[in-house]
Amino acid sequence: MSGIRIGSLGLGRLGIRHAENIAGKIRNAELAALCDVDAAKLEETAGRLNVKHRFTSFEDMLRCGDVDAVVLASPSALHTGQTAAALAAGKHVFSEKPLGVTVAECREAEKAVEAHPDLVFMLGFMRRFDESYRYAHDKVAAGVIGRPVLFRSYSQDPEKFIDGAIAFAPHSGGQFLDMAVHDIDLARWFTGSEPESVYAIGGCYAHSEFARYQDGDNVSCLMKFKNDAMVFLFAGRTAPHGYNVETEIVGTRGTLRIASVPQKNLVEVLDAHGVRRECSENFLERFGTAYVNEVQEFVDCIVTGRKPAVTVYDGTRVSKIAYTCKSAFEQGKLLFF
Amino acid sequence: MSGIRIGSLGLGRLGIRHAENIAGKIRNAELAALCDVDAAKLEETAGRLNVKHRFTSFEDMLRCGDVDAVVLASPSALHTGQTAAALAAGKHVFSEKPLGVTVAECREAEKAVEAHPDLVFMLGFMRRFDESYRYAHDKVAAGVIGRPVLFRSYSQDPEKFIDGAIAFAPHSGGQFLDMAVHDIDLARWFTGSEPESVYAIGGCYAHSEFARYQDGDNVSCLMKFKNDAMVFLFAGRTAPHGYNVETEIVGTRGTLRIASVPQKNLVEVLDAHGVRRECSENFLERFGTAYVNEVQEFVDCIVTGRKPAVTVYDGTRVSKIAYTCKSAFEQGKLLFF
Amino acid sequence: MSGIRIGSLGLGRLGIRHAENIAGKIRNAELAALCDVDAAKLEETAGRLNVKHRFTSFEDMLRCGDVDAVVLASPSALHTGQTAAALAAGKHVFSEKPLGVTVAECREAEKAVEAHPDLVFMLGFMRRFDESYRYAHDKVAAGVIGRPVLFRSYSQDPEKFIDGAIAFAPHSGGQFLDMAVHDIDLARWFTGSEPESVYAIGGCYAHSEFARYQDGDNVSCLMKFKNDAMVFLFAGRTAPHGYNVETEIVGTRGTLRIASVPQKNLVEVLDAHGVRRECSENFLERFGTAYVNEVQEFVDCIVTGRKPAVTVYDGTRVSKIAYTCKSAFEQGKLLFF
Amino acid sequence: MSGIRIGSLGLGRLGIRHAENIAGKIRNAELAALCDVDAAKLEETAGRLNVKHRFTSFEDMLRCGDVDAVVLASPSALHTGQTAAALAAGKHVFSEKPLGVTVAECREAEKAVEAHPDLVFMLGFMRRFDESYRYAHDKVAAGVIGRPVLFRSYSQDPEKFIDGAIAFAPHSGGQFLDMAVHDIDLARWFTGSEPESVYAIGGCYAHSEFARYQDGDNVSCLMKFKNDAMVFLFAGRTAPHGYNVETEIVGTRGTLRIASVPQKNLVEVLDAHGVRRECSENFLERFGTAYVNEVQEFVDCIVTGRKPAVTVYDGTRVSKIAYTCKSAFEQGKLLFF
Repeated sequence: MSGIRIGSLGLGRLGIRHAENIAGKIRNAELAALCDVDAAKLEETAGRLNVKHRFTSFEDMLRCGDVDAVVLASPSALHTGQTAAALAAGKHVFSEKPLGVTVAECREAEKAVEAHPDLVFMLGFMRRFDESYRYAHDKVAAGVIGRPVLFRSYSQDPEKFIDGAIAFAPHSGGQFLDMAVHDIDLARWFTGSEPESVYAIGGCYAHSEFARYQDGDNVSCLMKFKNDAMVFLFAGRTAPHGYNVETEIVGTRGTLRIASVPQKNLVEVLDAHGVRRECSENFLERFGTAYVNEVQEFVDCIVTGRKPAVTVYDGTRVSKIAYTCKSAFEQGKLLFF
Repeated sequence: MSGIRIGSLGLGRLGIRHAENIAGKIRNAELAALCDVDAAKLEETAGRLNVKHRFTSFEDMLRCGDVDAVVLASPSALHTGQTAAALAAGKHVFSEKPLGVTVAECREAEKAVEAHPDLVFMLGFMRRFDESYRYAHDKVAAGVIGRPVLFRSYSQDPEKFIDGAIAFAPHSGGQFLDMAVHDIDLARWFTGSEPESVYAIGGCYAHSEFARYQDGDNVSCLMKFKNDAMVFLFAGRTAPHGYNVETEIVGTRGTLRIASVPQKNLVEVLDAHGVRRECSENFLERFGTAYVNEVQEFVDCIVTGRKPAVTVYDGTRVSKIAYTCKSAFEQGKLLFF
Repeated sequence: MSGIRIGSLGLGRLGIRHAENIAGKIRNAELAALCDVDAAKLEETAGRLNVKHRFTSFEDMLRCGDVDAVVLASPSALHTGQTAAALAAGKHVFSEKPLGVTVAECREAEKAVEAHPDLVFMLGFMRRFDESYRYAHDKVAAGVIGRPVLFRSYSQDPEKFIDGAIAFAPHSGGQFLDMAVHDIDLARWFTGSEPESVYAIGGCYAHSEFARYQDGDNVSCLMKFKNDAMVFLFAGRTAPHGYNVETEIVGTRGTLRIASVPQKNLVEVLDAHGVRRECSENFLERFGTAYVNEVQEFVDCIVTGRKPAVTVYDGTRVSKIAYTCKSAFEQGKLLFF
Repeated sequence: MSGIRIGSLGLGRLGIRHAENIAGKIRNAELAALCDVDAAKLEETAGRLNVKHRFTSFEDMLRCGDVDAVVLASPSALHTGQTAAALAAGKHVFSEKPLGVTVAECREAEKAVEAHPDLVFMLGFMRRFDESYRYAHDKVAAGVIGRPVLFRSYSQDPEKFIDGAIAFAPHSGGQFLDMAVHDIDLARWFTGSEPESVYAIGGCYAHSEFARYQDGDNVSCLMKFKNDAMVFLFAGRTAPHGYNVETEIVGTRGTLRIASVPQKNLVEVLDAHGVRRECSENFLERFGTAYVNEVQEFVDCIVTGRKPAVTVYDGTRVSKIAYTCKSAFEQGKLLFF
């Protein structure tokens, strides 16, 4: 089957997943090229997935005539530059979040996208492509729960990954930029509004290492949105039970909860621990289908000439909000947008 | 407060609970007397609960003028004789299940009750007095779920009590008589019908000791009721998660499940074992309120002159059905009622 | 049975429940007297519950020699004065929340209690006496979930009672004083700490009537506690599904959730609406046992000479915090305690 | 991408799904041909999925040199003959259940498969490829729940499809052959044993039309397996809440339940109906991923030269058992295998 020829960049855990998905689960697409600085991993993955073109240099991949589009699963700090370069080379771009690591970078990305109106640019807010989130969003959009009153969203990483989180802390940008960005995006998507004020708190409850970076191992914030919706976000690194991403939207006529039990599957266990559901272990398990769906949407947009619903401006807005949350947290002040 | 003066017999775990309930939680009643062959336990309990009359002989308690009614929490083999004696002495009788250990005994109990139409006799099928079971029964009786299709009920004791169950095995009458009687009573109550045929199986899956008594540590039976309702009962002694009594009634327009998660309380725990509910530990925890409600109903019947909804004939019917289930299990045959 | 002779004041819904409980479910107590300004309701209730002394004047009840203790279920504005008068008359006092409608009143109550060290004074924070809350608190106190990170608590009244809530709005003191006080008390009880800062928001999402009183139909606040615990509270009047009081305590080693599904009982319904639990309708249904337990504790304290764990100072602290939340909400500012 | 070239037969609901999956979601496969007697539907689907070869005759498709393997989603009565013909033509065969509509047919299918040891034959027991069932099976196989005591499995179709079920009744073979076959397969798979005896009951509780075919709208059976495991199966056509396929395996050391709440997704709704999960609507929604996984396994077996774990003999065994259940139901007798 022919289709959009994709070159995928980055072979970290998510990058490998993207490569596998493109190779085997995306309609109208083929994995034409792979790129990673780690030549051994490149060969192993490209061999396993039967990929013809293999690059250790992104610039080289951009020069490859068999590549129509790129998927960026590279370190965050490279996203803006790579997006601009790829668009300049005439490639459609799917970039993992964040759009950029500073708001200034996000503005640059905006310009690059605006300069290539014929190319598709899409940002990887995968939760919007999860079936449960979409189902809930459809209900909210249809007015089923009335007017949004409270939006509450948690992003908790399992304690068992804490060593990695600490190692990554100097570069992560902190809980709000690294984790809460997804919840911020969802809050805007579900309420159809933007924040007006934010108060943010938290601390190092179990791991003092985060304090070095003016960060906490668990943080939260309360925001008032312009449409009066209340938004409470909580992000943490110490969940003992697994990868807990849950969201609640309280409306005047109903409430929806998405994954309030972060169940791994449909199996219930009754044993000495009681009646229990085992939990999702990580983002790849929880959002496996969403990662397929989002790249499918990217490909479908290219094929049909549609523009993705998630725009480059959403990327900038979310980054800006996350930075304000971070400032509120660092300063201990109420901030206004 | 004055009220019906009750003499309570038997200070096993359930007997003590009845005594405490009568002493402190039953309206229009007082715990006037206690009786047990264990004099030390008698003194301790009577002292703690401020009970005036104390007997080590049931006959002596029956002669006490300050006793209007008796509660029998004695060994099963004594129920029939004590019921007859108490009624003959002019006392109202609340007897724990079973009515008798043979069908012949049940018939004797019927005669004793018939001979004293002015006295209240009530049998302790406490599940009928549990709020959740009553709520479900009200719905079924109101036709909310349509016509009963399948009635499924489990009675599982925790594995941690297995030593006691094995020790009691020679006298218990087996799973059908000792445990499934409650489910049999519920099946009749919910379907409003009686069994027509039964096939029963099971075995010693973990504890071969029960085989000695032609019993299993886990057994089940499938019955067809006269109104065509299917009835599946399961009784076991090896539940690792706790005391699991659950019931499902599938109707043509809806299904009700009672305690399909045998949750201890409203607390949910999220920890290394997942998201879980801890379970009820035993019948006293699960049916604590039901044990109060049933004796309250007994007292209310005496006070108002009503007759209890559970009659002596229900006791006989249930015993008869349980014996047939037991025979079907022992013979490996399909039996008809 | 003799015991503490209680005079109960107020025959609103909760007052009647207290009277019924004292009459029939509290050990070592008797309902010696009833008092209400509504003579007809007084006669009806006293007759039904067999109560000897009946008063339409609280002062008269205080002069009754057959009354050892009083239970105050009167309008909030009267609590302080009645508490002082009852203590002065030598009666033990159980007062429904709030302690007083202003902090100044609370201080007066403190003085009255301090002036009568031999009398028991107890405040009706019934949630502390709910079995699920106690079970969770025991776990937290035992360190099972590690250090408290986030405390989240909701108090939502059903939309179907909105007319009453609007009618009561001029006198309720607003969501924080009328509803969130229970959550504030729980936050202090579970975290063992006190608030340091608060940001509060909300609005009239469905019922603009509350704006007249600088209140919202749904409000929330985020507080930082002195031990760094994050506390998020949400109170609302528009829950379509029932009376939703739920609490979550996220700790570094585990999370506990109390009543995250506000289930009415153990019945699960499977019908055209899916698989569902029906919900508690109101506080009397949800906290029925807690209302018994708290008055039992009051009586036990009198009988044994213990002092209740909930002190008059807890009443003042909670009121003070609720007022600060209310101010933060009205001013749209971050406030410090 | 090249790969196994599949010709798919039948464009009913499941056939279309198979075609879509092969076209877009199966690695190492391509949808080379489509076949259906309905030329219009054939053109529409083949056009939409970009399929080159289109046939209205299965024999013609078997003669196509671009087809390596066939997927049979044709009427049950044709399975045996088409399997034999396809194998004779040198094509690998994936057949939807049942293997044949009589045991004699199943034997013929066995012979055809035995005659072509180099070709892959696989039967579509999709539940074995559902992630939750596999997860549970892995646990059982690893001994996590100890020895199997009770296996309980329900297959309930939604009442809203009843008209179709009644129309299909003359050809369905009845509840045991049409629906319970999946549960029978699971019972054998989970217990690792075979049935010894069966008692089956049921009736027409809502729709008398099934009686004409000696069938019921709801039926059940209790089987004793050779390893003493108890097996209770329930199949019905009148579920008001959706497509309810659930399974429970009670072991001596733990119990597993798969989909005991047949939830559609991870969204929980809190509204006037309580706290609820909406349910799966049909087999395509519930087993969407399983249908992909099973054909993927078929392709992987062809590519790697493995043989599928589900053999043609499993198909015969299951049919034989289902027929015995059906006989037991029709005769009202206990039957032995």
